Amino acid sequence: MLSVGIDIGGTKILGALVDEHGQILYETKVPSPAQDPDLMVSTVVNVIKDVIANATSEVVGVGVAAAGFIDASQSTILYSPNLKWRNEPFRDRLQVHLDVPLVIENDANAAGWAEYKFGAGRGTKDMVMLTLGTGVGGAVVADYKLRRGGFGIAGELGHVRVVQDGKQCGCGRKGCVEQYSSGTAVVKAAKKLAASSGPAGQRLRELKAEFGELTGAQVYQALLEGDAGVYSIFREAGRYLGQAMATITAVLDPQVYVIGGGLSEAGEMILEPIRESFLQDHPARGFWPEAKIVTAEFTNQAGVIGAADLARESLAKL
Amino acid sequence: MLSVGIDIGGTKILGALVDEHGQILYETKVPSPAQDPDLMVSTVVNVIKDVIANATSEVVGVGVAAAGFIDASQSTILYSPNLKWRNEPFRDRLQVHLDVPLVIENDANAAGWAEYKFGAGRGTKDMVMLTLGTGVGGAVVADYKLRRGGFGIAGELGHVRVVQDGKQCGCGRKGCVEQYSSGTAVVKAAKKLAASSGPAGQRLRELKAEFGELTGAQVYQALLEGDAGVYSIFREAGRYLGQAMATITAVLDPQVYVIGGGLSEAGEMILEPIRESFLQDHPARGFWPEAKIVTAEFTNQAGVIGAADLARESLAKL
Repeated sequence: MLSVGIDIGGTKILGALVDEHGQILYETKVPSPAQDPDLMVSTVVNVIKDVIANATSEVVGVGVAAAGFIDASQSTILYSPNLKWRNEPFRDRLQVHLDVPLVIENDANAAGWAEYKFGAGRGTKDMVMLTLGTGVGGAVVADYKLRRGGFGIAGELGHVRVVQDGKQCGCGRKGCVEQYSSGTAVVKAAKKLAASSGPAGQRLRELKAEFGELTGAQVYQALLEGDAGVYSIFREAGRYLGQAMATITAVLDPQVYVIGGGLSEAGEMILEPIRESFLQDHPARGFWPEAKIVTAEFTNQAGVIGAADLARESLAKL
Repeated sequence: MLSVGIDIGGTKILGALVDEHGQILYETKVPSPAQDPDLMVSTVVNVIKDVIANATSEVVGVGVAAAGFIDASQSTILYSPNLKWRNEPFRDRLQVHLDVPLVIENDANAAGWAEYKFGAGRGTKDMVMLTLGTGVGGAVVADYKLRRGGFGIAGELGHVRVVQDGKQCGCGRKGCVEQYSSGTAVVKAAKKLAASSGPAGQRLRELKAEFGELTGAQVYQALLEGDAGVYSIFREAGRYLGQAMATITAVLDPQVYVIGGGLSEAGEMILEPIRESFLQDHPARGFWPEAKIVTAEFTNQAGVIGAADLARESLAKL
């Protein structure tokens, strides 16, 4: 049983033909026309047609993953920060050009489902995924199923608050964990450290001079070199994430947390402060069994694999 | 189809015979030997036998609700603050004396399920209940089912953090919403206000002089009389609860919140500050459909009705 997964990002669109074991049989990538909704529709349709043309047996459905709030019927993008869409009937706009049934899905949900079904969360009953990238994305699996909530927007875990009256978040709230534990937050803190005159920012200043600017790549390089200033920034990001996870445990009580996104590439250097803070902050520690915390197994392909599998699941129910 | 619901409280044990529509056909109440585990077992068994003896048709199961962490198999009380039990195989200790199958359930889960199935949450898909009493209890219904989490402990919503490094909670964490929005927290704040010399505490001081002490009853009386000092305490409790709910929405995205427990008897006087704070603190307000916030329909009987219905549901699956 083959299905198609599409992952719409800010810079590129990935398309893949995926079988029921999560194996990718064909893959393609095109630039993302993120600023042009009409061009986005035709581009995504072309990617889907390309993938279907490469299938050797019937394709049962298409799952399209995008950042943003998707409504409960998985047809309308209520709000997308990157695509600048509001109440966009994206499914219908795509579906009219296609014979195969299609659903749309939040990108973090798709990535989380790939980890649950085929990756680091497989074999569990209740899993939470946190994706530390541009923002902090989330996915909630409870009793073996992805839970989308009453309005389709559950699992926006980046907006769990960690600091009352804390840093202003793009969502309008203050103190959301996204402002402390995302890749963006880490790079921002690194730039601030580099701009200071203290010795802790020395290596970052050198990297900035060498590369012209500081991005995630340079920050990661400094971390791998053992830079103490950058390491303390990662520890701080992990500390806040662990605190948010203690609150998520109070609500959902998962057996496993899967940490994905760019920051998770730091492996134990980010997992260790997360675990330390999570346990320190855990409600009723000692009486409440502790969830495992692991890094994601998939990286760039999680979105297409999860979107394809969720499409197969949800369309099978029709 | 009849089942039995038992609700073990700190002062009394309620038992009821409940039909599949949530109607109570027979009810009984005995004092709770909360400090004596062995006497608790025999007392609960006797209540169950009494209820079964009053059934006119077959009883399919028994649900026993108690405060505390119940394991995922619904047989062991991992931790109970009131009963002082740790890893107590409570189901087996009861079951040996009974022919009818029995499950145990967290008391807030039982109450929440009663509201979902027969009360203020009926007809929805995703509901969250918050019980404002001695502590802040919670229940999570997602996609039509009560969700118990990976270890059986989900929905401990009183331990969602609202203040980093805030008030010390009995769970070991700091800043849990339970320390700000429970009935206990409100009475504590009222006592503090009464102990102050300011004019805002005048009416509370009079009530304390009249009744010898301040309990929830006097605080509620002052609220109903329109006392400004007590009203501001209720507003503060509601404000923190609304903030916790904004975080819960980020995780679960329920369509409706049901507010129960002693404080919910204040009706709009507690709902209004909750709603105000929830909306003010809501992530992506304007793009995210807003959950309804209502008070519970059941009061003392929610536990037995929910426990009986959950027993019927979970035993039907065997």
